[in-house]
Amino acid sequence: MAEKVNIEKKILTKNEMKAAEVRERLKGVAVLNFVSSPGSGKTTLLENILGDLNKKYKIAVVEGDQQTTHDADRIKAAGVEAYQVNTGNACHLEAIDVERALNTLGYDLDLLVIENVGNLVCPAEYDLGEDAKIMLISVTEGDDKPIKYPVMTRACEAMIINKTDLLPYVDFDVDACVKFAKGINPSIEILKVSCRAKEGLDKVTEFIENRIKAKKGI
Amino acid sequence: MAEKVNIEKKILTKNEMKAAEVRERLKGVAVLNFVSSPGSGKTTLLENILGDLNKKYKIAVVEGDQQTTHDADRIKAAGVEAYQVNTGNACHLEAIDVERALNTLGYDLDLLVIENVGNLVCPAEYDLGEDAKIMLISVTEGDDKPIKYPVMTRACEAMIINKTDLLPYVDFDVDACVKFAKGINPSIEILKVSCRAKEGLDKVTEFIENRIKAKKGI
Repeated sequence: MAEKVNIEKKILTKNEMKAAEVRERLKGVAVLNFVSSPGSGKTTLLENILGDLNKKYKIAVVEGDQQTTHDADRIKAAGVEAYQVNTGNACHLEAIDVERALNTLGYDLDLLVIENVGNLVCPAEYDLGEDAKIMLISVTEGDDKPIKYPVMTRACEAMIINKTDLLPYVDFDVDACVKFAKGINPSIEILKVSCRAKEGLDKVTEFIENRIKAKKGI
Repeated sequence: MAEKVNIEKKILTKNEMKAAEVRERLKGVAVLNFVSSPGSGKTTLLENILGDLNKKYKIAVVEGDQQTTHDADRIKAAGVEAYQVNTGNACHLEAIDVERALNTLGYDLDLLVIENVGNLVCPAEYDLGEDAKIMLISVTEGDDKPIKYPVMTRACEAMIINKTDLLPYVDFDVDACVKFAKGINPSIEILKVSCRAKEGLDKVTEFIENRIKAKKGI
């Protein structure tokens, strides 16, 4: 009589398998996957904080965009190693893109920052081998974004509210935004930043440095 | 002897077939599909212009969001018929969503406005039975968005540069943005708007009214 076998192991997708490989090879490296709408200010934030961190740690950035090398060019101009991935028609990065970038950038890093394609939807569902996803929301986008894009809000460990210098000119209720985000993801960490006014940057730097130290075990 | 037949007809996807059905049933109705990043101001723009047009024409709005009925509630509060589609995990509306909405809204319309899920990538590739896609870009998003999201720029007949009241507070070169857009799509029509300062709204209203008249043949 045939024996009944219970197969409960999750079947991994091709991307999940590749992400596991990337994660394995990046043991000891902090890997942060930055996601947001187009134009929320991911690149500007990275330009503002990575230059300093780069003096203490070995950092590289993977840039994802449908087209252009603008963002990688900007990161390189800030003195940080960067690799641009153009996704063409695709709406998100996949783990294989990160692997290809690392074939050029090398694995000998303290911090790998991934700047995903500007999109609050699809990147939520693709593991790139990161330790954490970090979401940016600009105050010009409206305070209801965390509940309108709940899959992403749930997937992120931190939410950075950006462009706070524009608060006097827009209708954005910071407390309401935080409440919406915490309603979906109670443990989400909130940071507030203005790259233009240079406010709150130290907190983001500290957040990232803590992730580097935790991963290095120091 | 078997005859050789050349099959050159394009094989339509399920969505394209449904879009063709929707288009056939909406003959004589202007159908505009508004696309943008999250928070570019699609709903606010519609709140500002549809109230007046609604006095002269029979209008309905299909609202797409991953979650919440915020946008449909706002449109209804402006006195215009609206139907909310929640796409859950999905990153774009499909023609079948429009058909379902029309089963409630009815086909007896002069104008159907579709407000797509906030996403500059995926909605570019889904025909919803519309006459034209209209792209919104807020000046806070950066002037390079048309070339970073070229598939969408190519798919749109008009680009509305929104939140021009914030121009003094951000680094956004309107001329550069227009040049980027026209480089990809030379015939794209450009409109500039501030809903907050109530500037340029008449031009958008005129643009939409012209589409209604052209479709009705008046």
